[in-house]
Amino acid sequence: MRLAIDVMGGDHAPDAILKGCVEALQVISPDDRLVLVGKRRVIEEYLDDVGVRDPRLETLHADDVIEMGDEPAKAVRGKPESSIVKMMLAGSAKYESLVPQRCDAVLSAGNTGACVSASIMHMKRLPGVHRPGIAVTIPALTGNLVLCDAGANPEPKPTHLWQYAIMSSCLAEKCLGIANPRVALMNIGSEDSKGSAEIKAARDLIRATPGINYIGYIEGREFFEGVADVVITDGFVGNTLLKMAEGLAKSLFKAIAQEIFETDPHLAMQFEPVVKRIYAKNDYHEHGGAPLLGVNGICLIAHGSSEARTIKAAVRNAKRYIESGLNDEIVARLDAAERVVQPQREYA
Amino acid sequence: MRLAIDVMGGDHAPDAILKGCVEALQVISPDDRLVLVGKRRVIEEYLDDVGVRDPRLETLHADDVIEMGDEPAKAVRGKPESSIVKMMLAGSAKYESLVPQRCDAVLSAGNTGACVSASIMHMKRLPGVHRPGIAVTIPALTGNLVLCDAGANPEPKPTHLWQYAIMSSCLAEKCLGIANPRVALMNIGSEDSKGSAEIKAARDLIRATPGINYIGYIEGREFFEGVADVVITDGFVGNTLLKMAEGLAKSLFKAIAQEIFETDPHLAMQFEPVVKRIYAKNDYHEHGGAPLLGVNGICLIAHGSSEARTIKAAVRNAKRYIESGLNDEIVARLDAAERVVQPQREYA
Repeated sequence: MRLAIDVMGGDHAPDAILKGCVEALQVISPDDRLVLVGKRRVIEEYLDDVGVRDPRLETLHADDVIEMGDEPAKAVRGKPESSIVKMMLAGSAKYESLVPQRCDAVLSAGNTGACVSASIMHMKRLPGVHRPGIAVTIPALTGNLVLCDAGANPEPKPTHLWQYAIMSSCLAEKCLGIANPRVALMNIGSEDSKGSAEIKAARDLIRATPGINYIGYIEGREFFEGVADVVITDGFVGNTLLKMAEGLAKSLFKAIAQEIFETDPHLAMQFEPVVKRIYAKNDYHEHGGAPLLGVNGICLIAHGSSEARTIKAAVRNAKRYIESGLNDEIVARLDAAERVVQPQREYA
Repeated sequence: MRLAIDVMGGDHAPDAILKGCVEALQVISPDDRLVLVGKRRVIEEYLDDVGVRDPRLETLHADDVIEMGDEPAKAVRGKPESSIVKMMLAGSAKYESLVPQRCDAVLSAGNTGACVSASIMHMKRLPGVHRPGIAVTIPALTGNLVLCDAGANPEPKPTHLWQYAIMSSCLAEKCLGIANPRVALMNIGSEDSKGSAEIKAARDLIRATPGINYIGYIEGREFFEGVADVVITDGFVGNTLLKMAEGLAKSLFKAIAQEIFETDPHLAMQFEPVVKRIYAKNDYHEHGGAPLLGVNGICLIAHGSSEARTIKAAVRNAKRYIESGLNDEIVARLDAAERVVQPQREYA
């Protein structure tokens, strides 16, 4: 495996990212390579400080950084020397002359919009794909759940949602080992009559596609009840839901801890390990690196607040994605679906 | 107060609704009236069974019921004798000849879409209102939070969101006693560059309106952190977020309880009262009955899974809404805003 990692992107970059890369050396093979993309001086200083010299760590110098608040498309065009852009080049087939060796996968915890833009621009889309979507694996208390799209495409057309259903099914099968994954479409009611014309059009496309185990609409209430393996929604809703779930879980644990502490400080001490075990069982850091489905390569987008262990987990996950044959399966399944289902022009 | 209540609507109707009405007799005045709208025989049998005869309970017979799965607009047109339609007539100025006395407010836990449709059709909108929106008060761990729209208008235009900001500010001030409420707009990033053209247009309208304390975009993560008093979003996102928060909180408490039980059954017993206190402090049933802001009257929409105590709380809340002078304030504030801010035609 040859994995390019943007060490400049993320709330805790570059230190947490570099620390994660060093820790990941424990879980990769002797012939794997981590290509650290960022300012050479920063990278070298860090490695000197921690005293690490390992032939599996390479550096690809990038002089510029796309900040979290930069406007994505503009930043990608305006900062060709940024770590995100150079990382995507390293992962693309097109620019093999510019970077020594094409990487099998790329990983960034930086500006998500810029990653999506740069990935589409340089890695390009897989044949037949309209718009790539981010598929996040959520440890949803009752088991793993794939949510797509988590923020790449806030205003998808029905055909985009349809392709997310196909691609996410492939992901659940190939990478999470879920046979015949149950696919649901997020809506504000479970009845067939509910929802916008776009959602109904997406539903009709998904339902008409052989090989998708479509189980119907899902409401927010059922999200954590384990009724579906794959949930399809637009990037605005997906992103908002993810962030809200994260915030609510945190606030709720805090409220419980406070209430317990006020009741009996001794009880609070007993409660602490319980919370830790629940966190460990449902640790989203373990799922670090959500694939941008539909690009020609493996592009992993990590949480902005990624810590070293998130990056370490993402490196491990990258290997699984590379070896899964996911993209070949996606291309074949999309092609088969296009032969059977004919989307109406207005929804394409 | 004269309050019409749809006793046929809701997952636990009619029994839970009727029980709630009977319990509400404890909290209303001698000259208040609850007008029970539904099948006369069902209502009379229930009251006979529980042995209640109270002059404050009146019955308005409705022969038909709009089911939860009915397509809203179609059901409202096709079932003129339904409890929802007859309740809205009782609350409207127009049909005073048909029903003995106009009610000051109406309340239903039935099909939300049908309530919105019937309310707009019969109660009509307040002067200047484009589209009514549901404003739910959420006990958000750190304090009360108004979320609008919670499901009346899944695809709002920027002017609708703008009016929700104005109307919800009035609600927070007049009914929740929050001075100068902090208003935020839900988005997938906090930076000004983020979001669709529609969200940016809504932001510009809200920002330009004197009297709105606009604090910027809010992401899902901050929802439970107490940074805003009013959160504005489209009805799809609002509805999904609400349901998800409900489901997640439930699932999380379940996971904690299970983990504690597996650790130490004795500890589980000590934990139970803590959970109960948190529930009590953040009980959404206490906020039963979310006003449909923008209709000419007080139309309260209760949670589909309303229990007797939800209805009892909603009756108490109805009185507060009626006495608040909310609608006069809304009309005045919308009028003042329209004089200052000129929405671009494409976003109106």
